Amino acid sequence: MPRIVDHEQRRRGIAKVVSGLVLKGGAEAVTIRAVAEECGYSTAIVCHYFRSKHEMLAYTQRMAWQRGLSRIRKASREGKDLLTCLDFALPTTSQRWQDWHCLFAFWGQTPDIKGIETEWRESSTTSYDLFIDLIAAAQGRGEFDPAEDPKEVATEVQAAINGIATLAAIQRPDWPASRQREMLRRQLVRLGYRPKSQTV
Amino acid sequence: MPRIVDHEQRRRGIAKVVSGLVLKGGAEAVTIRAVAEECGYSTAIVCHYFRSKHEMLAYTQRMAWQRGLSRIRKASREGKDLLTCLDFALPTTSQRWQDWHCLFAFWGQTPDIKGIETEWRESSTTSYDLFIDLIAAAQGRGEFDPAEDPKEVATEVQAAINGIATLAAIQRPDWPASRQREMLRRQLVRLGYRPKSQTV
Repeated sequence: MPRIVDHEQRRRGIAKVVSGLVLKGGAEAVTIRAVAEECGYSTAIVCHYFRSKHEMLAYTQRMAWQRGLSRIRKASREGKDLLTCLDFALPTTSQRWQDWHCLFAFWGQTPDIKGIETEWRESSTTSYDLFIDLIAAAQGRGEFDPAEDPKEVATEVQAAINGIATLAAIQRPDWPASRQREMLRRQLVRLGYRPKSQTV
Repeated sequence: MPRIVDHEQRRRGIAKVVSGLVLKGGAEAVTIRAVAEECGYSTAIVCHYFRSKHEMLAYTQRMAWQRGLSRIRKASREGKDLLTCLDFALPTTSQRWQDWHCLFAFWGQTPDIKGIETEWRESSTTSYDLFIDLIAAAQGRGEFDPAEDPKEVATEVQAAINGIATLAAIQRPDWPASRQREMLRRQLVRLGYRPKSQTV
């Protein structure tokens, strides 16, 4: 296996451990030592992959939101409708719930960390760009009001998804997947979504 | 001054320090020792007011969301319209931005802490109940579509405010107060808001 792939796989493996530590003890449970112990590595090996605790957390939350966006892109390539695609951003599974939890922990880090505002921004602008594409594609399929500006709608969709996710994250038992999805559907309809296959 | 008031005032003072520590170093910067140093108290005195770090954080985030809700209640008593009231929930000032930051840090704590899910839930249900009252009052003033169910609308309003707050919190320069307010206004109009005093 090429070295570079191995390096990235190791980082992903470490990120998985970091995400578990955040869930079990908040961001403060993430220390080079705790991660090393959990991975069965020496601290020197962990430091080979990540120079700091912050770098580990930043990488881990990046994995978290990229996981959602990758799944959305895949659904889009498969020709799924807008709601089905966006549904993958919501905390509807244990994994996605953990991902969102990790995001909140990362947003709650101090803005004084060098570069953290750039990292915060990146998760937001990356999903914004993807959502613009999805809305435009939905308009192209006659599935969304063509009079709406995809950029404006994309921001609304981001706010809707984040809003649902915050409610679901802190009141998990009240927000089964079906309720999250239904709330997203209603908001998409308000914004101009006109799915062909069902009554809205 | 009665002892009980003094006790509560001390707790508030400590919460203010805790909130500052979260902003400067994330939730992990909050230790009994760091709080004591910052307050100029002994750790024994801090422990007299809060039995644990978690209790300090829980109290601090409670102050944060209660601050917003108090301001909303005051605006409502003064007869302000729905949008003006709800506007106080958004991170439109440095204080409110810090409050929201504190909430994210608290939501990113581990769900394994005893009682934390009850505390997460409480912030959400308290604002939910207040929002129901605000919608019903707005309907009474002919300021909101009477056909809408205030309970359903209240959940939508919570999601809208949280959604806007997440975007503003991680991309603060892009979200001046006016943009947050305008986004909230548009969503309220979609939900049935019909302000009398202006064109929507």
